[in-house]
Amino acid sequence: MKQIAILGSTGSIGTQALDVIRLHSDLFHAQVLAARRSVDKLLEQAMEFKPAYVVITDEQAAEEFKRKYTGSAKILTGEQALCTAAGLPDVNLVLVSVVGVAGLAPTLAAIEAEKELALANKETLVAGGKLVTLAARKHNVLIRPVDSEHSAIFQSMLGQDRKGIHKLLLTASGGPFFGKTRNELAHVTLKDALKHPTWNMGVKVTLDSATMFNKGLEVIEAHWLFDVDYDHIQVVVQPQSLIHSMVEYVDGSIIAQIGNPDMRLPIQFALTYPKRLPSPSHEFVDWSRLAGIKIAMPDTRVFRSLGLAFEAGKDGGDTAAAFNAANEEAVRAFIQERISFLSIFDVTEEVLNHWKREEIHSIEDIHAADARARFMAEEAIKKAEL
Amino acid sequence: MKQIAILGSTGSIGTQALDVIRLHSDLFHAQVLAARRSVDKLLEQAMEFKPAYVVITDEQAAEEFKRKYTGSAKILTGEQALCTAAGLPDVNLVLVSVVGVAGLAPTLAAIEAEKELALANKETLVAGGKLVTLAARKHNVLIRPVDSEHSAIFQSMLGQDRKGIHKLLLTASGGPFFGKTRNELAHVTLKDALKHPTWNMGVKVTLDSATMFNKGLEVIEAHWLFDVDYDHIQVVVQPQSLIHSMVEYVDGSIIAQIGNPDMRLPIQFALTYPKRLPSPSHEFVDWSRLAGIKIAMPDTRVFRSLGLAFEAGKDGGDTAAAFNAANEEAVRAFIQERISFLSIFDVTEEVLNHWKREEIHSIEDIHAADARARFMAEEAIKKAEL
Repeated sequence: MKQIAILGSTGSIGTQALDVIRLHSDLFHAQVLAARRSVDKLLEQAMEFKPAYVVITDEQAAEEFKRKYTGSAKILTGEQALCTAAGLPDVNLVLVSVVGVAGLAPTLAAIEAEKELALANKETLVAGGKLVTLAARKHNVLIRPVDSEHSAIFQSMLGQDRKGIHKLLLTASGGPFFGKTRNELAHVTLKDALKHPTWNMGVKVTLDSATMFNKGLEVIEAHWLFDVDYDHIQVVVQPQSLIHSMVEYVDGSIIAQIGNPDMRLPIQFALTYPKRLPSPSHEFVDWSRLAGIKIAMPDTRVFRSLGLAFEAGKDGGDTAAAFNAANEEAVRAFIQERISFLSIFDVTEEVLNHWKREEIHSIEDIHAADARARFMAEEAIKKAEL
Repeated sequence: MKQIAILGSTGSIGTQALDVIRLHSDLFHAQVLAARRSVDKLLEQAMEFKPAYVVITDEQAAEEFKRKYTGSAKILTGEQALCTAAGLPDVNLVLVSVVGVAGLAPTLAAIEAEKELALANKETLVAGGKLVTLAARKHNVLIRPVDSEHSAIFQSMLGQDRKGIHKLLLTASGGPFFGKTRNELAHVTLKDALKHPTWNMGVKVTLDSATMFNKGLEVIEAHWLFDVDYDHIQVVVQPQSLIHSMVEYVDGSIIAQIGNPDMRLPIQFALTYPKRLPSPSHEFVDWSRLAGIKIAMPDTRVFRSLGLAFEAGKDGGDTAAAFNAANEEAVRAFIQERISFLSIFDVTEEVLNHWKREEIHSIEDIHAADARARFMAEEAIKKAEL
């Protein structure tokens, strides 16, 4: 029985991970369920999955949870509890599915405790790529990506000659605004932006998919995960989300991973790796959908997010952390209807234009960069305010 | 320096293998060049590649070669010389690219000598699959397939969970007659049948591609190469010949190998495995061709070859050897304009309908089945004669 800590169990990835665990309850047990403050959902999960530990980082929510909970799990609270949970001796695998830079410290804790690690948190690698990959190499921990694209690349590299890699071909659905011009996007509303054509995800990720900032973040993640330089990473639009990504080798051979757009598949593979087990859906790809597949280049003039991501990634140091933080603030302002859809690009660009790169030596350096970028973003948001 | 024996150096695969060796002359040397009787071509190759051995199985051709050759290679003659060459101590890798059942004995010799083995000969596995795979297991020799489809499957399985395989998806270009009805094929001429849409290959292979007997043979090969039962092998038509084959896993994930239709790519990978090196063409897949890719199911009523192959394979024993021999005789009769294109199917079916399966215990059993099937095919050809 593999004991799993799900850090972020009430979010989109966490609940789907529990679907996988439910299906394979002979192999996996949710030893730790951790959430920030979704008390009711966490209560329900704790009653069903009977974890040995429940983590609630928000102290107030923890009080409420303790009042309502009738089970026997040990309850841990506070931000540090995620790191404690990641290092528990009776945990084999840590799934980091919390949102935001909050994923970084528990990821490092899991690596230092030499746990199997499934990583669904983008910011950990975008902001902390250098720290995380250095630690993973030191502790000989393989980072199993959960993102469908990175899982596809991971799967397309298994057993392959790493030195023979020519290019990573990171696919993008293109989001709901694929093919639109900048003018057509001027009056996009929050509702429009939340209609994703293929994936069912959380709000922030869905918006990042509409702006393609998501893909920009994934480019930076791919750089760190697979140790491939930015000039050998290319974004390719594949609107059906069937080809989840590809790896091109120097001999002209491409290995591609194809599957239905169901996040439970890459989540499951991160848990079962190197084995494969029947999927929760028990569905296989429908051939008729693979025929007539579309492939296109992204329009980088409209989706400036991609160019900005490559620039931020290549700049190194803490610039990618700034890129991520600025985008988060811009998206938040868009959700609050303070700025327009197109201003999400402008705000992030404005922050990057004035960014003075510093090297990252510690997690504190990342938090400092994050805070500095958010402050700068807020200034830019004020200027862009509707 | 890897010393390579090319058994069948003057054929389509052999000459393309020499292209690869020429490109990577720092890594590979053609230690043995072997042909049946193409004296002039072999002379030219021997002068360029300076092998240590030249094999000419046809004794008369050998005499001519000896008169004309001014180099210093040792010359071996007779059918047995292929086996001798396969076992030479100063050979590291044997590429079996001779045509027909003649490939079987040298393949077994290479396995017994525990050489690296690149197999481009279909009949070896179709007729001798059991003998060859048993020997390969015993001597711990990995058979590296050279066929583009099997190379694709091989590449899509590297580092993957073999127990997690759900289905092999063997792609077919569909040949020049994809989409045609049986009536439309009634008056096909040899010239029509030799127009292959994507691959540049030898005459027999091109005709087998037009009838899809080629694909039938590949199904049987795939069964032996990858130890997958026939109910988990499916033929899929992919007319552009870009997706060279795919492997579907139990979790719904498909790993596919994509590349330009250039036989030098799978040949090279069979030589460089597990490494990859830049390709002879230095070309990568053109994206615009991957868009709008077509995928279809083969019409098994027209291409009865497929159904016959599955039946022959499932029947076991020497039935696949009979299937192969009957098809060879039927194709020969078509080339000689003795029978019509559609009679190729009829003749093979006729032989299989009357075939009494026997078990295979030795290479002699295969030769006996081969002879018996050819005799039966000749009877059927006489009945079908134009």
